[in-house]
Amino acid sequence: MTRCIDACLSCYKTCTSMAMNHCLEMGCKHVEPKHFSLMMACAEMCRTSAHFMLIGTPHHKHTCRKCAEICAECAADCERVGNMDECVVTCRACAESCRKMAA
Amino acid sequence: MTRCIDACLSCYKTCTSMAMNHCLEMGCKHVEPKHFSLMMACAEMCRTSAHFMLIGTPHHKHTCRKCAEICAECAADCERVGNMDECVVTCRACAESCRKMAA
Amino acid sequence: MTRCIDACLSCYKTCTSMAMNHCLEMGCKHVEPKHFSLMMACAEMCRTSAHFMLIGTPHHKHTCRKCAEICAECAADCERVGNMDECVVTCRACAESCRKMAA
Amino acid sequence: MTRCIDACLSCYKTCTSMAMNHCLEMGCKHVEPKHFSLMMACAEMCRTSAHFMLIGTPHHKHTCRKCAEICAECAADCERVGNMDECVVTCRACAESCRKMAA
Repeated sequence: MTRCIDACLSCYKTCTSMAMNHCLEMGCKHVEPKHFSLMMACAEMCRTSAHFMLIGTPHHKHTCRKCAEICAECAADCERVGNMDECVVTCRACAESCRKMAA
Repeated sequence: MTRCIDACLSCYKTCTSMAMNHCLEMGCKHVEPKHFSLMMACAEMCRTSAHFMLIGTPHHKHTCRKCAEICAECAADCERVGNMDECVVTCRACAESCRKMAA
Repeated sequence: MTRCIDACLSCYKTCTSMAMNHCLEMGCKHVEPKHFSLMMACAEMCRTSAHFMLIGTPHHKHTCRKCAEICAECAADCERVGNMDECVVTCRACAESCRKMAA
Repeated sequence: MTRCIDACLSCYKTCTSMAMNHCLEMGCKHVEPKHFSLMMACAEMCRTSAHFMLIGTPHHKHTCRKCAEICAECAADCERVGNMDECVVTCRACAESCRKMAA
């Protein structure tokens, strides 16, 4: 579980930082509402999933399942937008880790 | 949706405040790990569901569905513990509002 | 204190929702890094100040003082950008309420 | 700055997890309102300071300064309560890192 908490916080860091620095600098496709709000939803879901694991509630299985879905969708959208390789890799790693935790 | 955001933030306020003030003062059953961590999970899920609605992501349907479940469970546990009427009422109202939003 | 908690959560709602919906739709000056990151900082500071008041820690005085500063700055920047009247009003009301709480 | 973000998230993880698992299990002094709410305030302040650094706002200097204060206070209180060595060490490391960032 420690590894999944770290994967979630790592993904939260990457999504927040890339959205607020890289995407706002790049503009255009990077600040389309669909892409940008998905980045923010992914960051928030990762932060929440980590929190659920930390407070020791059995509900973390459900937040991890949802987190895996949003991370996979965010990775795909970052690929479509382009120039978001770090985010693609981190989101995929978090999706993989959350999927196992939710199983 | 505005009404559901307010129901979630109201439930977040009540759960956080009652856990950190009322429950810690009362001690005993009120600080049992099972009860206390459920209160904190409920507060966090409400805060996150409100956030998902505010950022305008379609994923809010899933966070609202999960929020309704946790709120219902929290209301039942607050009834079992006793002296938590305000929390029971607020959690039930939020569960009801989130269930509609998730439909 | 209840009133200040509500002012903070109201400002958190307005800043988050306007940034993620109105500003992303409008583009241009509304998504300049300086303006957008100030909106997000204001939303987060309001959420945190409300949380500090809810958990009953005396440190809330300091978070409220900082919150008042950021809200005042956010209100001024929303005026500069234009078409952000709701945000200007809500940030000013929150700044006023937090200033009293910090005194 | 990357190092300070990691110190804050590490301290957030330790405080949240120890409060919600270790302290609730131990009971007695570990769930005194003064101690427990300080642990939760420390966790929230660390989470917020990390967030301010990630979104790239110059206000992070002020949240880091406040974070250093709360972490130092939390470390001292964990020492007083006893059996909280991991929390003492992590809070001190975070206080040190935040103090440098705020300078």
